[in-house]
Amino acid sequence: MRLLITTYILGITFLGFSQQDSAFIRNVYNEALSHGKSYEDLRSLCKDIGARITGSAEAEMAVKWGEQKMKEYNFDKVYLQEIQVPHWERGTKEAGWIKLKNGELNKVSLLALGGSIGTNGILEGEVIEFSTLEQLRNLKSNKTTQGKIIFINQPMDEQQINTFKAYGGCWPVRGLGAIESSQLGAKAVLIRSLGLPLDEHPHTGGMYYVDSVEKIPAAALSTLDAEKLSVLLSKGDKVNFVLEMDCRDYPDATSYNVIGELTGAENPNNIITFGGHLDSWDTGEGAHDDGAGIVHSLEALRILKEMDYTPKNTLRVVFFMNEENGNRGGESYATLVKERTHEKHIAALESDRGGFAPRGFSCDGTDEQVAFLESMEHYFTAYDLHVFEKGYGGVDIGPLKKVVDGIPLFGFVPDSQRYFDFHHAPSDVFENVNKRELELGCAAIASFLYLLDQKL
Amino acid sequence: MRLLITTYILGITFLGFSQQDSAFIRNVYNEALSHGKSYEDLRSLCKDIGARITGSAEAEMAVKWGEQKMKEYNFDKVYLQEIQVPHWERGTKEAGWIKLKNGELNKVSLLALGGSIGTNGILEGEVIEFSTLEQLRNLKSNKTTQGKIIFINQPMDEQQINTFKAYGGCWPVRGLGAIESSQLGAKAVLIRSLGLPLDEHPHTGGMYYVDSVEKIPAAALSTLDAEKLSVLLSKGDKVNFVLEMDCRDYPDATSYNVIGELTGAENPNNIITFGGHLDSWDTGEGAHDDGAGIVHSLEALRILKEMDYTPKNTLRVVFFMNEENGNRGGESYATLVKERTHEKHIAALESDRGGFAPRGFSCDGTDEQVAFLESMEHYFTAYDLHVFEKGYGGVDIGPLKKVVDGIPLFGFVPDSQRYFDFHHAPSDVFENVNKRELELGCAAIASFLYLLDQKL
Repeated sequence: MRLLITTYILGITFLGFSQQDSAFIRNVYNEALSHGKSYEDLRSLCKDIGARITGSAEAEMAVKWGEQKMKEYNFDKVYLQEIQVPHWERGTKEAGWIKLKNGELNKVSLLALGGSIGTNGILEGEVIEFSTLEQLRNLKSNKTTQGKIIFINQPMDEQQINTFKAYGGCWPVRGLGAIESSQLGAKAVLIRSLGLPLDEHPHTGGMYYVDSVEKIPAAALSTLDAEKLSVLLSKGDKVNFVLEMDCRDYPDATSYNVIGELTGAENPNNIITFGGHLDSWDTGEGAHDDGAGIVHSLEALRILKEMDYTPKNTLRVVFFMNEENGNRGGESYATLVKERTHEKHIAALESDRGGFAPRGFSCDGTDEQVAFLESMEHYFTAYDLHVFEKGYGGVDIGPLKKVVDGIPLFGFVPDSQRYFDFHHAPSDVFENVNKRELELGCAAIASFLYLLDQKL
Repeated sequence: MRLLITTYILGITFLGFSQQDSAFIRNVYNEALSHGKSYEDLRSLCKDIGARITGSAEAEMAVKWGEQKMKEYNFDKVYLQEIQVPHWERGTKEAGWIKLKNGELNKVSLLALGGSIGTNGILEGEVIEFSTLEQLRNLKSNKTTQGKIIFINQPMDEQQINTFKAYGGCWPVRGLGAIESSQLGAKAVLIRSLGLPLDEHPHTGGMYYVDSVEKIPAAALSTLDAEKLSVLLSKGDKVNFVLEMDCRDYPDATSYNVIGELTGAENPNNIITFGGHLDSWDTGEGAHDDGAGIVHSLEALRILKEMDYTPKNTLRVVFFMNEENGNRGGESYATLVKERTHEKHIAALESDRGGFAPRGFSCDGTDEQVAFLESMEHYFTAYDLHVFEKGYGGVDIGPLKKVVDGIPLFGFVPDSQRYFDFHHAPSDVFENVNKRELELGCAAIASFLYLLDQKL
C-alpha cells in the first residue's frame, strides 16, 4: 500500500511538471509565431550586412550587428572574444570559358573554391574529365593528366533521402580535389558544384592544400555548366578551358566570437552553450548558412528573456566566427572554456543546417545522453518534430569535446530537402528563407533549451 | 516444439515479405529521384496549359493533356468521364481603390472571390471593418452597415502548427461572408485574403450565395492591403472603397474526369482509386493546388508501370475536374462507381495539399482502418515520414463514402508550412514547387499504393 501511494504521488508530480513544461513550450511557440523578431533580424543580417567571409568589412560589421542585437534584447551579459582568423579574398577577376576546337568560346558560371590560389593571369589547358574522385584516384599514371585541367564531374547522390549524407559522400571532391589533381600533374582542377538541382548557380566551399604538393587553382562550375562541359567532352573532340582568377590569401585578421548570456539563478557556473556561425561564404547572403542559425539562437534567448524565464543554469549564446574556412571561432571558444576552470559545461547545441521546417534534434553523445534526448520527443509531437536520435552536433561546438569530458553535443535538425539548392551559392539569400519555417525553428530551439535547462 | 517451429517459420516468412516490400519501396524512390518525370510534367501542366478553371479553354486543354500523358505512359486503360461543370469567368475588369476623405486614391491588389457577381459598373461605398466574422454575426442591427461595404479583416491563426487548421478556422469568412454581409444590408463585401504571409498576393477561392439573400459582390484584398485599409480606418476618418468587377456565371459547360488504369491481375474488379484535381483557380498556374496532386498520381502509376509491377487489384488514377467550384468531378465519379455494380471499391487516396516534402498519410475510416494505416509507418521511417493517423481524405474522393459502405479514404500529408503562401494566389506557380520535394511525394504515394494493393 505504501508503494502504491508513493507511485501515485510521484505520478501526480510528474504529470504536473509535464503539463507545466507543455504549457511553457506552447507559449514559446506563440511568441515566436505571433511576435517573432527572427525574420526581420535575418533580413537585417542579410541585407544590412550581407555576405560576411572572415577578414571582410562585412564580417566585422556582423560582429557589431550581433553585439548590438544582444544588447538590444537585454541579455544579462554581452561580450566579445577576440580571435585571429584566416583572410582570403576572391578578388575582382573570376571568369571561365569552355573553348572548343574551332575556337568557339562558351562562358560558364563558376566560383573559385574558398582558399584557392589565383591563376596569375589567364590560364588555358585541355580538359580531362573524371566521373568521380575515385576514378581519378584509381589512375595508375599521370600520362593522360600531366599539364591538363582535371574536371571532376561527380554529382551528389540524389537517391539519399537525407541530403547531408549525399553531401558527405561528395565532400572530398571539393576538399581534396586540388591535392589529388596536382599529384597527377594537373595545372588546375574544376569540380561540379556540390548542389543537388541542375541550375546556373555555382557553389563554393572550403578546400585543402598540403605543403608537400604544389598548389593549383580550383573552381566549381554550376551543375548545368558541368553537364554542358561533359556533353562536349563526350563527343571526343579536344576541349580546352580558359580560366582567370585573382583570389588569394592575406595575413590573418583580428575578429571576434560574439557572446551573450542569461545568468543561471541556481547554478550560474553551469553553462549551456548554443549558437551558429556568424561568418558566411562571400557569395549570396549567408541566409540559410548560417544566418538562420544565428537568428535561431538569438531569437531563442530573446523569447526566453521576453517570457521572464529565469534559467537554472547559464544559457550562453555564441555567434561563432570563421566556421567556413578554419573553425577558429569554435577552436578559440573551446580554449576559453578550458581556461575557465570555474565553469561546468553541461551541454552544447548548434544550428547550422538551414532555416527550414524543424524535424527534431540529434545528439553526439553517449547512449544515456541519446536516451535523454529521446525522452524529450513527446513534448514536440504536437509541433510535428519526430527526429530525436543519435547524430551530429555541429562544427563550431565540435572542439568542446576535446576540452569537456562527456559533454553532450546536440544538433538542430530541420528538413534537409532544399538545403543543397542554396548552400554556398549566390542563391543563399533572404528571399529563399520562409518566415514560418524560420520561426518554427526558433521556437523548437527555445523549447529545447528550456528542457535542457530544466532537466539536465 | 511444434508451436515453436511454426512461429519460427511464420517469422521468417513475415521477414521475407517485409524485406521484399522494403526493397520494392527503395526502388520506387530511386526511380522517382533519378528518373522521375513529375517535375517536367508539372512544368508542362503549369506552362503549356496554365491556370485551368472549369469552363475555360485551358481546362479543356488540360483534359487532353492528361489523356495524352496517360497514353504516353502506356496505362492499360485510358478514358474520359463526361460531366457538366459550372462556368464562371472573372472577366476583364477587376480593380479596387481605397478612397480617402480628401479624394486621394490608393489602388489595391484584389481578386473577386470565385462565383461572385460583378459590380455592374463602378461601385463605391463607405467601408466598415469587422475584425472577425464572429464580430459581424454578433451585430444586433444593420444600422451601421446598411448600404456600406463590409470589410472582414480576420487573419488566419498563425499559432496553429498545422496551417490547414488555421485555414479551416478562417474558411467561413470567405465562404459565407457575402451572405452574412448582405443580410446586414451591405452592398459589397471585402475580405482579408486567406493567406498566412503579409504580402501583395490576393487569394481567391470558393464562396456561397443562397436564394433567400440578395447577392452582393465579394472580393479578397491582399493581406498587406487589408492591413493598410485597417490602419486608415483606425484613424477615424471616413474611408470609401471603389470597386469594379465584371465577373459572372455562364451556363454549365461540358468537361471530363480523366481516368487511367493498371488492371489488377488477381482481382481486376477490385478498385483502388487515387488522384488529384485537374482544375485550378484562374490565377497563378495551379502548381501546388493541385498540379502537384495530378503529377503525384500520374507519376505514381508511371513508376509502378515502369517497374513492371503487376497489381493484384486494379489501380485507377482519376484526374478529377471541378474540385474548386462545385466538386462535380468527385460527385460524378461517385455516381459512376455506384452504377458499376460489378466493381468492388476497396480504398481511395487523394493528394490535394501541395507538392511539399512528405510527412505521411491520414485516414478517414474506422479504427481498424486507421490501425492498418499505422501498421505501414515502419516502411516509411527511412524516408522521413511519420504522420500515419486518423484524418481527412480529400474533397474529390469524399463522395465515395456515400456510395461505398465502409471504404477507407486516405489523404497524402505533405509539410503544411508553405501551402497558404500560395493557395489560390497568383504566386501558385511552377517556380514555387521544389523538384525533390515533389519527387519524394510521388515516391511516397507510389509506395503507399503498392502497400495498399499488397495488403488490403
